[in-house]
Amino acid sequence: MAGPISSFKTPLAPGHTIGILGGGQLGRMLCVAASRLGFRTAVYADGDENPAFEVAGTTVHGRYDDLKALETFAARIDVLTYEFENVPVAAAQHLETLTPVCPGPLSLSVAQDRLVEKQFISDQGVAVAPFADVGTQAELEAAIAEIGVPSILKTRRLGYDGKGQYRIKSAADAGVALGALNRQPSILEGFVPFEAEISVLIARGAGGESSVYDCPRNHHEGGILRTSTLPSGLPLDVETEAQTIARTIADALGYIGVMGVEFFYVGDGDRSKDRPRLIVNEIAPRVHNSGHWTQDACVCDQFENHIRAICNWPLGVTRRNRDVVMRNLIGEDIELWSSLADDPTATLHLYGKRETRDGRKMGHVNFVGART
Amino acid sequence: MAGPISSFKTPLAPGHTIGILGGGQLGRMLCVAASRLGFRTAVYADGDENPAFEVAGTTVHGRYDDLKALETFAARIDVLTYEFENVPVAAAQHLETLTPVCPGPLSLSVAQDRLVEKQFISDQGVAVAPFADVGTQAELEAAIAEIGVPSILKTRRLGYDGKGQYRIKSAADAGVALGALNRQPSILEGFVPFEAEISVLIARGAGGESSVYDCPRNHHEGGILRTSTLPSGLPLDVETEAQTIARTIADALGYIGVMGVEFFYVGDGDRSKDRPRLIVNEIAPRVHNSGHWTQDACVCDQFENHIRAICNWPLGVTRRNRDVVMRNLIGEDIELWSSLADDPTATLHLYGKRETRDGRKMGHVNFVGART
Repeated sequence: MAGPISSFKTPLAPGHTIGILGGGQLGRMLCVAASRLGFRTAVYADGDENPAFEVAGTTVHGRYDDLKALETFAARIDVLTYEFENVPVAAAQHLETLTPVCPGPLSLSVAQDRLVEKQFISDQGVAVAPFADVGTQAELEAAIAEIGVPSILKTRRLGYDGKGQYRIKSAADAGVALGALNRQPSILEGFVPFEAEISVLIARGAGGESSVYDCPRNHHEGGILRTSTLPSGLPLDVETEAQTIARTIADALGYIGVMGVEFFYVGDGDRSKDRPRLIVNEIAPRVHNSGHWTQDACVCDQFENHIRAICNWPLGVTRRNRDVVMRNLIGEDIELWSSLADDPTATLHLYGKRETRDGRKMGHVNFVGART
Repeated sequence: MAGPISSFKTPLAPGHTIGILGGGQLGRMLCVAASRLGFRTAVYADGDENPAFEVAGTTVHGRYDDLKALETFAARIDVLTYEFENVPVAAAQHLETLTPVCPGPLSLSVAQDRLVEKQFISDQGVAVAPFADVGTQAELEAAIAEIGVPSILKTRRLGYDGKGQYRIKSAADAGVALGALNRQPSILEGFVPFEAEISVLIARGAGGESSVYDCPRNHHEGGILRTSTLPSGLPLDVETEAQTIARTIADALGYIGVMGVEFFYVGDGDRSKDRPRLIVNEIAPRVHNSGHWTQDACVCDQFENHIRAICNWPLGVTRRNRDVVMRNLIGEDIELWSSLADDPTATLHLYGKRETRDGRKMGHVNFVGART
């Protein structure tokens, strides 16, 4: 089998075609950013409804494990990226012999498996929550004994927006927890009492240069991101430390593109005990919901910076111009569109999804405030 | 024949489909704005290369006088607009019996014919350059005698970017001028010595409310817009006067959408003689090249405001946040893309056109400066 095709030595010229695996709202906003830079776009997705198809030059409906269809797709594009992290690694590795794939399959394989992810981050000397591999009932009981309660049992794979998780409040929960997750290979994570959740959006170029955005303070409900607020209100050195950690991880992955890194800030209270104050929760090898505020508060948003990075363009300016609150429109929230349309502080970004479902991200709105 | 379908009484909900006649860069940027508000888009165009097709949900290649094809198109959309003013009026009038058409056919019929346009504007009590209808050699000679030289002979229809014009420097030019314009019905316009060219971008909603952007100062070369600069450097009351005139015209047209109105500012020098200081050059019943700076210097750009207006949404905020210079990338200018990509003050908007031709608009760049 041929080796991977490396990324571009010189900037990819406008007019070339960017292939995107995944047809959701992130793909949709990547298409728009790519078009603004004069690129063509081709989106490959398997969903019933693909918001990205509406703004893509070429669309292909196919399965992510259909190597033949993916090969045909690869022949039509000049660089491949993805908008979600559950692209099969084998597929990405195969495609990498046909076209540049950014970020590379390593980022996928790390991000797809919570156990691998925790171990990889930990190996970089970065703090994560206590964790243990759980495949059997006996392992779960041993893990609870070691890590304690409260803790969270999570499937190693395919969890998002709070799905595939079971909260362990006492050792007695061990009896039902694995069954609730369909006895999938799992990981027990110690519960981290935190003062705040923040994230880092980092853009890293083909030459290893990187640029970070200000850290949003994120608020989740039911495992789903509700708001991202800038400024975070945390001390500047906490943000700087998080950004440094994100760089460490991106460098270790040889990452190309925009990546989101989610953190728990546990507070500075007992720093004397030499406990870390920032714990990495997870990484997302793609543009990230907590970076949507960049669309209306930065010169160059996360979507354009992702396109720039994968095309080996110079990274765009990440400086924040405005205070801003990003609020997701989830499920029935979409009904707010008409009042939001009338709010001069609100910039709307709707995804055009036909079906409103509980917990479904239907759009987001950036409330833009004071200048910075 | 059925009468025209009026525009919406309540805001059109996201998820509906906006039909656009014309597949150029203006249509492309309208599609992006529509998608951001959750609308679907359908573009109908006859060009060899249609940049708007790349970001449209549905695309139809057809002629603008093919009523059958246009009817089929109208059945798939919820509101119709256009990105260029040379849609046949008869087609627009027919389509108006099938779906709301914004702006209405009156705006097209006025803007398509320089003679009708001058007369319409003049009828609103607004100053235009001296003009005369020219169909024959005798009429041309009489017009030159009346209006004088220098003056400009222009075809009544289908001129843009300086095409279809012949400059009359002396009465002797009358012999060749009409031939140079293929003896098409024309208009002789007196040459207006101006201090500056400015324009007004006005958004007017279905309820008659309107909102204006700051006036860009425009610089043309060879009849093609090169730059638009904000602030204009002109006295504020000149801008206000231009905006008032634009409102007068938009109101008279019952206009719905964003319209561009181009002005010559002749200077305040001889105001004592009661001569107007602002002369309307022409109107464009669509989003306008001199409004592209709004993409990076305003909360709500001209494209979103056009979509808002035609869907009977509240108009978006037109306030300018930044000083800005918009520069068109014309023909070979597109080769500047890689150095512009590396300029932190430059925001690129490329149209993805495959063929570079002299005088062809390939993209534009907004150079964003100090905050206002």
